[in-house]
Amino acid sequence: MAGNTFGTLFKLTTFGESHGTAIGGIIDGCPAGITLDLDMIQEEMNRRKPGQSAIVTQRKEPDTVAFYSGIFEGKTTGVPIGFAIHNTNQKSRDYSHIKETYRPSHADYVYDQKYGHRDYRGGGRSSARETASRVVAGAIAKQFLSDIKINAFVSSVGEISLDKPYQELDFNLTESNPVRCPDPDKAAEMEAKIREIRKEGDTIGGTITCVLQNVPVGLGEPVFDKLHAELGKAMLSINAVKGFEYGSGFEGAKMKGSQHNDIFNADGSTKTNLSGGIQGGISNGMDIYFSVAFKPVATIMQSQETINKDGEIVEMTGKGRHDPCVVPRAVPIVEAMAALVLADYYLLNKTIKK
Amino acid sequence: MAGNTFGTLFKLTTFGESHGTAIGGIIDGCPAGITLDLDMIQEEMNRRKPGQSAIVTQRKEPDTVAFYSGIFEGKTTGVPIGFAIHNTNQKSRDYSHIKETYRPSHADYVYDQKYGHRDYRGGGRSSARETASRVVAGAIAKQFLSDIKINAFVSSVGEISLDKPYQELDFNLTESNPVRCPDPDKAAEMEAKIREIRKEGDTIGGTITCVLQNVPVGLGEPVFDKLHAELGKAMLSINAVKGFEYGSGFEGAKMKGSQHNDIFNADGSTKTNLSGGIQGGISNGMDIYFSVAFKPVATIMQSQETINKDGEIVEMTGKGRHDPCVVPRAVPIVEAMAALVLADYYLLNKTIKK
Amino acid sequence: MAGNTFGTLFKLTTFGESHGTAIGGIIDGCPAGITLDLDMIQEEMNRRKPGQSAIVTQRKEPDTVAFYSGIFEGKTTGVPIGFAIHNTNQKSRDYSHIKETYRPSHADYVYDQKYGHRDYRGGGRSSARETASRVVAGAIAKQFLSDIKINAFVSSVGEISLDKPYQELDFNLTESNPVRCPDPDKAAEMEAKIREIRKEGDTIGGTITCVLQNVPVGLGEPVFDKLHAELGKAMLSINAVKGFEYGSGFEGAKMKGSQHNDIFNADGSTKTNLSGGIQGGISNGMDIYFSVAFKPVATIMQSQETINKDGEIVEMTGKGRHDPCVVPRAVPIVEAMAALVLADYYLLNKTIKK
Amino acid sequence: MAGNTFGTLFKLTTFGESHGTAIGGIIDGCPAGITLDLDMIQEEMNRRKPGQSAIVTQRKEPDTVAFYSGIFEGKTTGVPIGFAIHNTNQKSRDYSHIKETYRPSHADYVYDQKYGHRDYRGGGRSSARETASRVVAGAIAKQFLSDIKINAFVSSVGEISLDKPYQELDFNLTESNPVRCPDPDKAAEMEAKIREIRKEGDTIGGTITCVLQNVPVGLGEPVFDKLHAELGKAMLSINAVKGFEYGSGFEGAKMKGSQHNDIFNADGSTKTNLSGGIQGGISNGMDIYFSVAFKPVATIMQSQETINKDGEIVEMTGKGRHDPCVVPRAVPIVEAMAALVLADYYLLNKTIKK
Repeated sequence: MAGNTFGTLFKLTTFGESHGTAIGGIIDGCPAGITLDLDMIQEEMNRRKPGQSAIVTQRKEPDTVAFYSGIFEGKTTGVPIGFAIHNTNQKSRDYSHIKETYRPSHADYVYDQKYGHRDYRGGGRSSARETASRVVAGAIAKQFLSDIKINAFVSSVGEISLDKPYQELDFNLTESNPVRCPDPDKAAEMEAKIREIRKEGDTIGGTITCVLQNVPVGLGEPVFDKLHAELGKAMLSINAVKGFEYGSGFEGAKMKGSQHNDIFNADGSTKTNLSGGIQGGISNGMDIYFSVAFKPVATIMQSQETINKDGEIVEMTGKGRHDPCVVPRAVPIVEAMAALVLADYYLLNKTIKK
Repeated sequence: MAGNTFGTLFKLTTFGESHGTAIGGIIDGCPAGITLDLDMIQEEMNRRKPGQSAIVTQRKEPDTVAFYSGIFEGKTTGVPIGFAIHNTNQKSRDYSHIKETYRPSHADYVYDQKYGHRDYRGGGRSSARETASRVVAGAIAKQFLSDIKINAFVSSVGEISLDKPYQELDFNLTESNPVRCPDPDKAAEMEAKIREIRKEGDTIGGTITCVLQNVPVGLGEPVFDKLHAELGKAMLSINAVKGFEYGSGFEGAKMKGSQHNDIFNADGSTKTNLSGGIQGGISNGMDIYFSVAFKPVATIMQSQETINKDGEIVEMTGKGRHDPCVVPRAVPIVEAMAALVLADYYLLNKTIKK
Repeated sequence: MAGNTFGTLFKLTTFGESHGTAIGGIIDGCPAGITLDLDMIQEEMNRRKPGQSAIVTQRKEPDTVAFYSGIFEGKTTGVPIGFAIHNTNQKSRDYSHIKETYRPSHADYVYDQKYGHRDYRGGGRSSARETASRVVAGAIAKQFLSDIKINAFVSSVGEISLDKPYQELDFNLTESNPVRCPDPDKAAEMEAKIREIRKEGDTIGGTITCVLQNVPVGLGEPVFDKLHAELGKAMLSINAVKGFEYGSGFEGAKMKGSQHNDIFNADGSTKTNLSGGIQGGISNGMDIYFSVAFKPVATIMQSQETINKDGEIVEMTGKGRHDPCVVPRAVPIVEAMAALVLADYYLLNKTIKK
Repeated sequence: MAGNTFGTLFKLTTFGESHGTAIGGIIDGCPAGITLDLDMIQEEMNRRKPGQSAIVTQRKEPDTVAFYSGIFEGKTTGVPIGFAIHNTNQKSRDYSHIKETYRPSHADYVYDQKYGHRDYRGGGRSSARETASRVVAGAIAKQFLSDIKINAFVSSVGEISLDKPYQELDFNLTESNPVRCPDPDKAAEMEAKIREIRKEGDTIGGTITCVLQNVPVGLGEPVFDKLHAELGKAMLSINAVKGFEYGSGFEGAKMKGSQHNDIFNADGSTKTNLSGGIQGGISNGMDIYFSVAFKPVATIMQSQETINKDGEIVEMTGKGRHDPCVVPRAVPIVEAMAALVLADYYLLNKTIKK
């Protein structure tokens, strides 16, 4: 209810603030009998962690996961998987600049208004550090759904965007560059742009596209819990996300029905896929694809005017080591959230027929 | 779980198929003591109902709501509000064309795959007729939240789109034309376009923008249940929706942090509002605004190739009276879903502080 | 959340007040493809309905169910089953005696305190009339779980109680007498007792025992959602219930471990069954049995002192036609709630293994 | 869904197996701004921990809680409280006697049947060690509800039971003896009984009674989520519990309405309290009291026949250090679960009126 749980049957609850002792979570409802590759989980964590390349934040957080329960002799047991990621980087810092002052386009002000009391260190609960727990759970969901292929990649940075349909991309190239764009030429352009922006002490937005392949027909519930509605919520719950579209998306709103309809092949597949693999909220066996818009990171290394708790106007300049562009590190988070949605709906779909 | 309930504290569960005896729902958790204006509820229904103007479907459904419980002496009592809308238009028709044949870009195929058995008449549960129940509940949520202003309007039809920011529009004009666009010139263009498309036996997509004003600071839960994540899910759960963006949306992904950050005024309001009234998932007191993309209606009055249950290729032409463009009638649905989200989060926010 | 929904996967939400237009509900999550015997549902309703024998209330309520959705061509479709039971007996009565006055050991006072406004007619939402909706849903759950045998019966009325273990009873005799006690001699004693009590204008309590046979091994979730915990909640949610025990129950608290332990047979069954068919919250394949205590009905035909809204002491005598003993009519309700629990846990158990 | 979460607004999710690295949990929805006394939490843990007296298990587990999040500068912040209790006692033991063999009246057999794979060490997830996490959360709930008095005590051990109504007891004496019975004479008898039973290598059951005082009027939701139904579920979810009754309980089933009805005083309180402080599922401001039956611990130090995984009959004798009677250590668990129910319903009740 208070918003720290995702999913209903395959269910993740997370805890933890940016600069607290530890962050972590509990995965409840993960089926029994899944052999887990713990190294793969750590690799997913490494894709998200700070300091992994020259174009992301240079903070050092090893983000090592400790599992406390739910796994025995290498396999899930069906009971909750508790885990924690201890913060190793908890030096006592000077937070006076954010204790009393609200950073523009951050959650400081609304947290104070809503709760009356907040852990201001590093953004506390509103920090994207929380997403590390999602990556842990997503990695387990991926192993549960080993037949489904989940590939996210950066599709734009600022005005630079991929101009090919995803079918022409080689997803094996996504990890070949620090931007996580599977088109090497575009990746180079994007990387140069991010370096330039960082020099300016500024930040820039971008988009991530995600493709889900080999999803069985029938996932998704009609009416309120349509598959794309839950995918949309999952993505919109990631820090800095401003929009979500699937299939034809906003372009589809400009089209005619005679152009947009996907004509069937005899086997139930469709000749085109403007629907994006989902009809009436239910997967139809075609590729599911969607895009997610991320705003530029709000912490910039430039001087900005803002207010403090007393409503006084003050000057503020970003401190610390922040990402000039969030999308490269957000790719595994998008994949993790997609995996969580699919795992949940996969289990739910087991209960539909007698 | 099976997807027919929306909300957690202010909670709507719906039932009913397009051509069944009745559709309806139960609103659980509506607070006690709200004086209800039942005429206003019917007016909202009339904004959604078929046959209201020349540019929408000419089906006749009076959509009269019968309330069964939860209202006593004109006021809510805090117990569930049960209601039904009886179908008056249940003549025995010939459904043979959709009984065995899957309409392109409809849910017929996936329902059969998922459930193995479906009410094929008029699309059954996948029909947008279900949204009438949402409008009933939304109208009650609006009355509960009488201080909040909820205004949706058509912002584009096909390639024709509003070019003014919403602040320059007069929402009083929205209902002055059948398109529900508050810019009379654009409305005339859009109406002409829809008439043209209908003559072609085709359909066309569009977008709806919604503005929520006077929302108190503090609504929304951090992490998974961010206010915009739930608004996004609510909108994506409406039939034919392909995308959702709020605040700067997909445009924001092209911007720099120095352009995008909203600088505070001394009173906590902001000079700009690219954030769209929500920071870190929590309302900040500024206007909340978002856009929703609708694909063109899949039923067209042109011949299309499709398949039947046996996987044979067959020809099919749309029958019946369908909307050439869904957005004019979807305006009250968008408002209703927004009202349901706000009502739920408003109640939840009462439990945050001791 | 507001308490009018039971279950998570097989989920019933009810609405309706005693003297409103209709009561009813929505069953969401009932699997697709179940052939429903609607006559059997009505028969279950008839076991609960008033006026069925000389020892229950003589009110006349036909309690005919109208199904609105979710059933097509005689089978469930997997979408919500909406239903209503219209009140035919809504003559305009004089309720002045309960409008301003709080009946002792009724919910009138607490409803007023909690909600500030209540439908006082016939007890409104607090009336046991609501349980008719449970019987509808339970009858569908029984048909879904056709392999499981669910038998409840009256095991005591006042001080008169069955002295045989359930294994010595013939459940076919339960419906052979108006008390619903499968031991004809005891049934006769109980019936005489109820007639005597009614003549005194008084009421009397009793207990119901329920036996669930052929339940598959493995139903129930560890920790908070143990099978017997949910059965207990289900029973305690029935009007007038004061206690629940399963297996050895309160007697078990007096025993030693060496007496209480159930020793295994080679096939996993046990020689004794003090556990009551559940170990660690999970069904073990043995018979599940439990008992439910019902207090005497609070409405008596004797003069009692009570208070009105203004806190003044007033005299009050019960009016209307009430049950002198509630247990005969509560037998189908106990069975219905047990069926709902089993249906929910049966579906949930499908998601436990990969 | 998978049963490891309790509550809806004030919500506890737990993880951990008896002999894993750690057990713990996440409390989500605890309101912001509560000043927490961490020493009091540890004191509650000490009331539950093994080795605290001569009549409980002599295992040594310090049960020290580490809090990871949600508390800042001594106060709750409204975000999740993550915590863990590390197992310090994890010596590598010989579990061969329970790895392949099913202990009578334990959950070993059903876990294997349900999950196909289990952590057999010390009972794994089915061990009552999990309840330590409940005591942590309950201690926080108690501090949130500081105006409400929650007093549980042992009311019987085997055949020895308290014969006074709770009003004649001094709850300050509960902690004065290792049995946790506030009647010193009865406590001495019970203690002697437990010592005798332990010498026999046997175990014995008992009951706990709990009294909730100063509960505000209006807690509890009508119909399925009646306050006593949730209290019942909470208690039945505790290991070894076989029954629950509140107010007049099973005795009430023998009474007449004219004896059982609680007559009002002018101020809304009642002259008697057979209702047990709850009417129609809603607290009425009178004391709430209930009793909980615990079976004898299944692990006895006597030889028993049982089966192994292959269905072979084998001899088995309990090993390790177990409780001869569970009720003394279960007193704080009963209180904790009661506190969790009240905290949840207290928050929920804030949303009932406009």
